[in-house]
Amino acid sequence: MKIDNEDIDYIKSIVGSENIYTDKAHKRAYSYDATRTFYEPDAVVFPRSEEDISKILSYCNERGIVIVPRGAGSGFTGGALPVNGGITLAMERHMNKILEVDLENMLAIVQPGVINKDLQRHVEELGLFYPPDPASEEYSTLGGNVSENAGGMRAAKYGLTKDYVMALRAVLANGDTIRAGKKTIKDVAGYNSAGILIASEGTLAVITEITLKLLPKPKFVKSYMGVFPDVNSAMNAVFKSLAEGANPVAMEFLDSLVVSAVQEKLGVNLPSEAGALLIGDVDGNVKEEVEFQLRTLEESFRDNGAIDFEIAQEKEKRDELWRARKGASQSITIFGSKKLNEDISVPRSRLPEALEKIYKIGEKYNFKVPCFGHAGDGNIHVNVMVDGSNPKELEDGHKAIKEIFQLVVDMEGTLSGEHGIGLSKAEFMDIAFNEAELNLFKQIKDAFDPNRILNPGKMGL
Amino acid sequence: MKIDNEDIDYIKSIVGSENIYTDKAHKRAYSYDATRTFYEPDAVVFPRSEEDISKILSYCNERGIVIVPRGAGSGFTGGALPVNGGITLAMERHMNKILEVDLENMLAIVQPGVINKDLQRHVEELGLFYPPDPASEEYSTLGGNVSENAGGMRAAKYGLTKDYVMALRAVLANGDTIRAGKKTIKDVAGYNSAGILIASEGTLAVITEITLKLLPKPKFVKSYMGVFPDVNSAMNAVFKSLAEGANPVAMEFLDSLVVSAVQEKLGVNLPSEAGALLIGDVDGNVKEEVEFQLRTLEESFRDNGAIDFEIAQEKEKRDELWRARKGASQSITIFGSKKLNEDISVPRSRLPEALEKIYKIGEKYNFKVPCFGHAGDGNIHVNVMVDGSNPKELEDGHKAIKEIFQLVVDMEGTLSGEHGIGLSKAEFMDIAFNEAELNLFKQIKDAFDPNRILNPGKMGL
Repeated sequence: MKIDNEDIDYIKSIVGSENIYTDKAHKRAYSYDATRTFYEPDAVVFPRSEEDISKILSYCNERGIVIVPRGAGSGFTGGALPVNGGITLAMERHMNKILEVDLENMLAIVQPGVINKDLQRHVEELGLFYPPDPASEEYSTLGGNVSENAGGMRAAKYGLTKDYVMALRAVLANGDTIRAGKKTIKDVAGYNSAGILIASEGTLAVITEITLKLLPKPKFVKSYMGVFPDVNSAMNAVFKSLAEGANPVAMEFLDSLVVSAVQEKLGVNLPSEAGALLIGDVDGNVKEEVEFQLRTLEESFRDNGAIDFEIAQEKEKRDELWRARKGASQSITIFGSKKLNEDISVPRSRLPEALEKIYKIGEKYNFKVPCFGHAGDGNIHVNVMVDGSNPKELEDGHKAIKEIFQLVVDMEGTLSGEHGIGLSKAEFMDIAFNEAELNLFKQIKDAFDPNRILNPGKMGL
Repeated sequence: MKIDNEDIDYIKSIVGSENIYTDKAHKRAYSYDATRTFYEPDAVVFPRSEEDISKILSYCNERGIVIVPRGAGSGFTGGALPVNGGITLAMERHMNKILEVDLENMLAIVQPGVINKDLQRHVEELGLFYPPDPASEEYSTLGGNVSENAGGMRAAKYGLTKDYVMALRAVLANGDTIRAGKKTIKDVAGYNSAGILIASEGTLAVITEITLKLLPKPKFVKSYMGVFPDVNSAMNAVFKSLAEGANPVAMEFLDSLVVSAVQEKLGVNLPSEAGALLIGDVDGNVKEEVEFQLRTLEESFRDNGAIDFEIAQEKEKRDELWRARKGASQSITIFGSKKLNEDISVPRSRLPEALEKIYKIGEKYNFKVPCFGHAGDGNIHVNVMVDGSNPKELEDGHKAIKEIFQLVVDMEGTLSGEHGIGLSKAEFMDIAFNEAELNLFKQIKDAFDPNRILNPGKMGL
């Protein structure tokens, strides 16, 4: 349902005329995300409160007007794109406050528009620690992180966003306001509505408040780098070291293409002979724990063929290592103007075979496929680099991606470890799910949003 | 819908006549659980496979026949009671196998009828560790643990059952078979159906297979006991020690009534001057981590008024401490023939106030209210001890319980930390949830089970 002047006047009466944009320039500014695809909303609205959101949804549900919640628009799968127009509910202007840090119970209560890193910095000053650190941490919002169940470098030891969500407040499509979960560690009363809202990509409700678990800040942290002759030995080292009891904070993988790209583009000093690198942090309450972790990793890495194992003690060296990892995504653009990037995830022991087959698919189509990512979780960012101006390459790239997905699903893996399905992977849902599963998703959608006003067109729904 | 001879013949044709009971004695044997309440099923069926379950559900869904999944029947809230008759699907006979322990990916795949402790023992022999250890671990099943999101002693450090469920297979009410989740650490494709099935008490689907995350077995474990002059100082020590960075495996609370009961009933040697005890384990990969934990706990306990802090190094001393804690539930029966036991949970910093007010409610009605439990999680088992043969005491006991629930909800706590709602707390749901939340639960129920055949009458649904 296209919105009309009457709708706009009504929404102005709720949020004030300064909190709605309907002009071309502003609509354009809110029409894209990290997929670099453009869909214009009919209006951009900046709600000031849960009450505003409740009134807007209640009205739009009656009128059949589409609502697309938006954090920073930094998603990789188009979750915040208004593919069917409607109202983009932008959380950045008002719904962006850290409401409370409860030191006694080690939790934070935030609004959805708070930027991840702002929370991290705020609680670290208080001696606490919010572990989830997606690569987008400097700009992505916690509402977006929850809606996609964002991971990050530290997920190997500390888990995902879902592992920190204690409770949510949310507005349902009909304008009703719910709390899901509690400020308690344990809660089994009622269905786990918070569990189903996490990673639901804005299709079930609009999240208005998030209660997040915090941890004590680790006392000792060091970084390490394992240098491997090839990808296969590195991938073997990943699952074997973890099965042998290593518990690193992070275990990140860079293949030789990525290593050469970050050297060329960022001038980072890395071992050029490396066929693959594993880098990461270890931490602990006592130095001996950190030493135990480093010893376990080094032994296992060398047993699996590592040609070198370096420990970064000083901040400069640690920052340099992490600059290499965090610059991977931007650096690989030297291999092609368009990056078809996917974040597949497989059981860790299948990583050696998965990577070998993925590179073969790349060879078949004659594409460079630089890979990097969260090997400790079995989650790899696979990048099929194509010439974006060449239709044949785009078509072949799409075929390659589809083959990779089929391969991953055959290996008991998933289409997405942390980026979500959104728009860009919706067409692959039937590779991963049977008819009963897809049907169940539709029934869950209908239970929350019978009029289908919340972010329609995402997740194949 | 009452089942008839035709129904029984059809089910016999699926599972074989040796796998269905319809005689009085057997129906009686499957009519109760740990609530000591009795409801007879119309038949007890022992499915041999997921396929059997699928056929049975498909048939019963068409005919409107009620299905109640049953593990060990050890639940405290009546989850396995067939309050509306129908078919009890008992998992104990055939659906009781550990299907796989994957050492490389540190996971186990089990059927729902596997007993918790059997899995623990099995994986520990392989150097791995399944942390969730409900007090019922020796007899409760993993299917039941998932359906209630069971906690346990080790939840303080290692979390709940939900933190270990990587994937489920389940049969929907209509007989469709779904997988929810994957053998991967990360998976954000599609809705988190596994998340909503956990703690859904058999009301949404019948779980047929569970993939559980395992950890490396901790190398060093020691036990501790903090002796406090009163409950208030112990409860302050709980949240303060954790906020100061302690991360014990367990932090269990026994009040003075419980201490005297286990001394009297089990002859365990505990400090009789104790107004309250905190006992638990600490663990680590290195000895220094264990020492760090013990030091942090001791300092914080003494700062909060502990009169003693003991470390149990030897197995005998450790076993003795745990015998006291694990014998709490049976020992307190010395205070009354009927125990109205609830497992409330509050934010940890509210524990001192919560316990103070709970004891006051007990005094008002002149009941002894021994309390013990998982203080490290804010989860306390509150036991209102009444004379079960005295109607006035039963009525007053019920009033006291209701007052305790209202108090807990007012303190941002929950009706249940780990036992679930089932039958026995269903009447209190409207204390904890608003109309929109209760309505959402109904809509979720309808999305999964539109004909309401799965465990009806539980959770207020």
